[in-house]
Amino acid sequence: MQEIERKFLLKSTVNFKKEARKNTRIVQGYLNSNPERTVRVRIKGEKAFLTIKGISNESGLSRFEWEKEIPVSEAETLLPLCEPGVIEKVRYEVPVGKHIFEVDEFFGSNDGLILAEVELSTEEEEFEKPVWLGEEVTGRKEFYNSYLSKHPFKNK
Amino acid sequence: MQEIERKFLLKSTVNFKKEARKNTRIVQGYLNSNPERTVRVRIKGEKAFLTIKGISNESGLSRFEWEKEIPVSEAETLLPLCEPGVIEKVRYEVPVGKHIFEVDEFFGSNDGLILAEVELSTEEEEFEKPVWLGEEVTGRKEFYNSYLSKHPFKNK
Repeated sequence: MQEIERKFLLKSTVNFKKEARKNTRIVQGYLNSNPERTVRVRIKGEKAFLTIKGISNESGLSRFEWEKEIPVSEAETLLPLCEPGVIEKVRYEVPVGKHIFEVDEFFGSNDGLILAEVELSTEEEEFEKPVWLGEEVTGRKEFYNSYLSKHPFKNK
Repeated sequence: MQEIERKFLLKSTVNFKKEARKNTRIVQGYLNSNPERTVRVRIKGEKAFLTIKGISNESGLSRFEWEKEIPVSEAETLLPLCEPGVIEKVRYEVPVGKHIFEVDEFFGSNDGLILAEVELSTEEEEFEKPVWLGEEVTGRKEFYNSYLSKHPFKNK
């Protein structure tokens, strides 16, 4: 599957949380954080997933993605094998027009960072921009979770 | 799961193939070849698997292993993402006493290498040694498939 996503920072002065319909705690680690072959173990609420991603295409918008649900108990045995730098965040699902924004508030060593993502069907697809949406950072590797796991936001 | 395996070179003068009950072609690549968190994509005959292994324990005999069967078509989309150095081999299953030896004959850049492995229930378990069994190489990283994918036998 090809994944088309656009990613943004947030304007810190506006509260997006009151528009969220759901929030879920996420803990994730990387069996490989290399962007050419990222292998991620994620526990998301009551579920867990193993996800493999390839390198982005030239525009930075599209990326190969393979994902399988696995039992949470198995994810818990895999997390200790991961590279140092497990990521903890709460994901808010925020409906905006016809789309759902996934807004991730980071904790631990990435405390203070908030990122919003919207998934699109094509690279050209239009979407409504909420007032709290800030600078676009799509394709910028320093905002990949795999990068943040090794280079925490706090240390910037 | 903990995996207990002992690995051996073969005495080149003895033919093990006439004792084999089955042979299967294997093609495999690594999404991570680091022995601390090996992630392997394997197509084995008509089936495919994603396998994650941790580091060996001190004795080198026991290693954490997690494995899931995946569709061959998905393995084929994951192989191009793998690190350079895909491994090709034929695995012969050779019954010896109460155990099955898995004897791997390598091709491509590891042409000429043959390795035999036997899986045990405990580190102390006894097993019958066939006449073709050579030097034990259990726990030696230069005979890990993940290492061979990057440092082929031919170049030695």
